Amino acid sequence: MPTIKLTLEYDGTAYAGWQRQPDQPTIQAAVETAIFGVTQISVPVIGAGRTDSGVHALGQVVSFRINREMTPRAWTRALNAHLPEDIVVRSVELMPDSFHARHSAKGKLYEYHILNRPERPAIERAYWWHVHQPLDDAAMSTAGITLVGTHDFSSFQTQPTDNDDPICHLQQFMVFLEGDRLRIAVYADRFLKQMIRSIVGTLVEVGMNKRAPGSLTAILNARNRSAAGKTAPPQGLFLMRVDYD
Amino acid sequence: MPTIKLTLEYDGTAYAGWQRQPDQPTIQAAVETAIFGVTQISVPVIGAGRTDSGVHALGQVVSFRINREMTPRAWTRALNAHLPEDIVVRSVELMPDSFHARHSAKGKLYEYHILNRPERPAIERAYWWHVHQPLDDAAMSTAGITLVGTHDFSSFQTQPTDNDDPICHLQQFMVFLEGDRLRIAVYADRFLKQMIRSIVGTLVEVGMNKRAPGSLTAILNARNRSAAGKTAPPQGLFLMRVDYD
Repeated sequence: MPTIKLTLEYDGTAYAGWQRQPDQPTIQAAVETAIFGVTQISVPVIGAGRTDSGVHALGQVVSFRINREMTPRAWTRALNAHLPEDIVVRSVELMPDSFHARHSAKGKLYEYHILNRPERPAIERAYWWHVHQPLDDAAMSTAGITLVGTHDFSSFQTQPTDNDDPICHLQQFMVFLEGDRLRIAVYADRFLKQMIRSIVGTLVEVGMNKRAPGSLTAILNARNRSAAGKTAPPQGLFLMRVDYD
Repeated sequence: MPTIKLTLEYDGTAYAGWQRQPDQPTIQAAVETAIFGVTQISVPVIGAGRTDSGVHALGQVVSFRINREMTPRAWTRALNAHLPEDIVVRSVELMPDSFHARHSAKGKLYEYHILNRPERPAIERAYWWHVHQPLDDAAMSTAGITLVGTHDFSSFQTQPTDNDDPICHLQQFMVFLEGDRLRIAVYADRFLKQMIRSIVGTLVEVGMNKRAPGSLTAILNARNRSAAGKTAPPQGLFLMRVDYD
């Protein structure tokens, strides 16, 4: 029974996130419906990242096993014909049985987009967090870099559960500024719930001089969500890429 | 009576274009309604470019005369509080009486955005024309550059009217390619109706090798819309900037 790997782009605006929920539109349900539309077979799909409501993806990875022989090209065309306009399959690969979109993932790249100017955006307003106070991007960069390494990220996790391991290896962190557009890129082996949005919300408080760039270490050490800043809104967040061996 | 100059950003997706029309949502009507909301005075506004339905702007310029003394900062805040979320005032200037957004304009910069990849877009699909066949951007650039100069652009005008002057001075033309995203920038003193979309539609036929890059001169000389290619869709077009003396 072939294992299929999909790479998906989606606009999360209209969805209650990745994960299937009763009576709510979700990306997972839309993908499963499209697979059923193509094959008349119901299969559950696994997403590498369980993106929240309103979060977007340029490179979400999804896996599923199905008793159907089709070429990657045929899968791509057929699924895209069945998916709604805000979800698209970018590529399809046939994988060994052992492949699992979430368990096999070695690292994920997320990007967060902030529009930093006095006036709210009219264009692309579904893809940026608008912050009207001027931000000190150098201070945000200095603060963010202190998070690089293997740490307990409990302070940046919402709704922790008992069996969640709070240790993540945050490998890369970068702030890019282009005119009034600020992008924050974060690469880690794994992420906790709303971890990037909590980090970004905290860094924006650093950028407004409400917190010192050096305070991030103390926040990490507190292992308590209340030590960190507000959670940034979802529409600025993009799952860019998932890496495998 | 002060003359006010507004610089506007808007997402044209939900509008039947710039120009006021009965029973249709338009940018002009939305701006006039916002001015009335702020001042309780009804005034007509003039737009530098009469953008079509679905066309966007990052730097549309609007002028109006009104018997109300307010600072630029107060105008900006008050209008943005009254405008819908897909229209925003970027800046306000108080101008001499002689200023007229359309008649005083010396040049306009437009950009057209093409997403050139096999799969349709899910993200930002309201801002790109999706062309799935591979495009030869060098051929498109060569073809476009032949349009630079002062020419009769009748072949790129839809619905000409008797009193329209078809002569435009196209001063700059450039094609930028970044990954699968192609941007076409065009600067001219004035534009005819749907001129850029007709040029872009024709250039895409060049990019698909359906027309030779050298054929643009013959198309210009024909002075007939049927000599040129299809009209590109509106959602890829942005009015970027309007220049004045």
